[in-house]
Amino acid sequence: MVNVAILGFGTVGSGVAEVLTGHEDSISRKVDDFVRLKYILDVRDFPDSPYAGCFVKDFSVIESDPEVDVVVETIGGATVALDFTRRALKAGKSVVTSNKELVAEYGYELLMLAKEYNVNYLFEASVGGGIPIIHPLSQCLAANNILEIYGILNGTTNYILTRMIRAGLSFDTALKEAQERGYAERDPSADTEGHDACRKICILAAIAFGRHIYPRQVPTEGITRITLADVDYADAAGRKIKLLGRAIRQEDGRICAYVAPHLVNNENPLAGVEDVFNGITVRGDAIGDVMFYGRGAGKLPTASAVVADVIDAAKHIGSRKLMDWAPGGEDTTRSPDTLRSRWYVRASCTNDMMRAMLGDVLPLARRGAAENEAACITADEMTRTQLGIRLQNIPVLSVIRVLD
Amino acid sequence: MVNVAILGFGTVGSGVAEVLTGHEDSISRKVDDFVRLKYILDVRDFPDSPYAGCFVKDFSVIESDPEVDVVVETIGGATVALDFTRRALKAGKSVVTSNKELVAEYGYELLMLAKEYNVNYLFEASVGGGIPIIHPLSQCLAANNILEIYGILNGTTNYILTRMIRAGLSFDTALKEAQERGYAERDPSADTEGHDACRKICILAAIAFGRHIYPRQVPTEGITRITLADVDYADAAGRKIKLLGRAIRQEDGRICAYVAPHLVNNENPLAGVEDVFNGITVRGDAIGDVMFYGRGAGKLPTASAVVADVIDAAKHIGSRKLMDWAPGGEDTTRSPDTLRSRWYVRASCTNDMMRAMLGDVLPLARRGAAENEAACITADEMTRTQLGIRLQNIPVLSVIRVLD
Repeated sequence: MVNVAILGFGTVGSGVAEVLTGHEDSISRKVDDFVRLKYILDVRDFPDSPYAGCFVKDFSVIESDPEVDVVVETIGGATVALDFTRRALKAGKSVVTSNKELVAEYGYELLMLAKEYNVNYLFEASVGGGIPIIHPLSQCLAANNILEIYGILNGTTNYILTRMIRAGLSFDTALKEAQERGYAERDPSADTEGHDACRKICILAAIAFGRHIYPRQVPTEGITRITLADVDYADAAGRKIKLLGRAIRQEDGRICAYVAPHLVNNENPLAGVEDVFNGITVRGDAIGDVMFYGRGAGKLPTASAVVADVIDAAKHIGSRKLMDWAPGGEDTTRSPDTLRSRWYVRASCTNDMMRAMLGDVLPLARRGAAENEAACITADEMTRTQLGIRLQNIPVLSVIRVLD
Repeated sequence: MVNVAILGFGTVGSGVAEVLTGHEDSISRKVDDFVRLKYILDVRDFPDSPYAGCFVKDFSVIESDPEVDVVVETIGGATVALDFTRRALKAGKSVVTSNKELVAEYGYELLMLAKEYNVNYLFEASVGGGIPIIHPLSQCLAANNILEIYGILNGTTNYILTRMIRAGLSFDTALKEAQERGYAERDPSADTEGHDACRKICILAAIAFGRHIYPRQVPTEGITRITLADVDYADAAGRKIKLLGRAIRQEDGRICAYVAPHLVNNENPLAGVEDVFNGITVRGDAIGDVMFYGRGAGKLPTASAVVADVIDAAKHIGSRKLMDWAPGGEDTTRSPDTLRSRWYVRASCTNDMMRAMLGDVLPLARRGAAENEAACITADEMTRTQLGIRLQNIPVLSVIRVLD
């Protein structure tokens, strides 16, 4: 018998309980042992819940019960969740989580702790919701040197951008719609400012490149400054504006990691990733590009990823999955300002002025453009710093990196 | 030390040697042991190969060498490859393969043999080339009941269809181009008649639904009858013609598995899978739809998947990965003729005649249509049998299933 405790009975936690008990037979068959939900930790009371007999309010009940093999942490944040995760690992229990904040900030420490106590710390659900990405990246692509990983990592912002592109809504209106549909929080800044995507690219980069990358090392720009004018010009260029998290291995071994909007070519499969869906592309030296696509959030998709990890943990009790990375440091990353690319530029000037500053460009047009407005994509690749120098005498309205 | 033997030094076999030796350090770090290429079996001589010292011509050298832990079978076909695979497993060696024909026909038997001898039989590379799909399907989606799996499983036919759609080439011209580019064999029938896709959907269905499905149980139709007229009508309907392998679990537990061209809506991510790429969608009860996308063939992508399995086998020496399925039988499948859907129909008749036979339809138009030609998509869903009855008095030119 494998006993499971869930910490936190919110959306994900209740989804985990539902998937775990609803698929009891097939899960037990896969583990080759009976998997039982023994405890749910929550401060609230749920007298009418079908799991009413499982609830406890004191973590030490779980911590001190030697029968508990796997702890599922769906509390979120990096305070109580950190404390409970440390204590669970030290008590010899494997921990499974969907908590991206905790993994992005404390992943290295917690993986080392898991190693020390010969248990596993698994977090497939922390990136891409239900999409299998952590596991394929660490195992199925093990025969590759990963060159780059990038993707649409946040469903809320992708929904907003999709509505701007397809329905012509402004950012504010699209955000409001996303809030009404439950896709965005009342305070949407963690999504719209890119922080959620930032945590996820940190986790992906650590697995792909083998060193911890902290969110504070990853320059992060959200989508709040994207306008319908930009959306229209991108469309004229056969491209879509997408918020991407990106991590690229540089020749010196450092990682260039950042979050920013990009103009993505319509022929790139990521351009077709719409609404709340996520898409993540991995570029390996042997495999070329592979993309993983699916629902990046939601109760049951996320629970599905958590429970897959529970199954994995249950199959590996007393043995270790080889998943870890080296500690972080100030020498691991490199600023994206040094990364060359083409650029989309919109400014209050004429096409001639744009050309005078930027040299050869692809001029873009849109219906209803303001009189003194020009937009283009540069013909040459250059760094953000080089671009800034060329643009210093132009009243710039938007600058967005082009993904080629 | 983990010793590896490769059987067959063709495209995939030589790619495996290249990836295995080129990534020696990182592979050994992942396995936590040194992984060495010890033998390559081939009837030919390769005196100038960097692996010249590894070549043997007699399989019994490998079979009887107790140092060999993992055998990579890239011979193909189901004669010699079957014999060597059986003997390797019986000699206590794990076997890794890219051989879809062998897995589709003998997968159940070989998995049972692997179980009996406490070794592993792994075949990630048999479907989707380098795309991780077997592993995610059997492990990462373990918390789901799989409802359906379908996809573009053959790169050659997808290249031909892409060239017909994008460049307006006829089937014959596009096939010739694919042959010139090395994407199609001189005898292309295994690809164009759908047999390759058939083997792959058999393997996916067995993992997804837990019973062996034989290729002879899977009705298979290729793309040789697709015309440019059909491509144009599909375009007018906002759809693309794609050859799909599909397996759907029916309410009675039987599997409806088949290979046939479909009209795929442009909003479905599979519609954007072009050229030689593959895309596979899995529908689970918890996760919803997830798609896996990448190069479905090619030396290094396929080798990348083979070597990931070698790493997995090397990490599990003396222990078993839980991957198997139940035996097949005549009661496992159900004819796709009973599967309801909308249909695309092209016939030598008028739109009025079409409507008289099919009821409410979406009529389609194209430039350059023959005078007495009508095409439509039915408004109602019906089985192929029901459709056939309604069409019995019409000179039908094309019938293609619509994927909604």
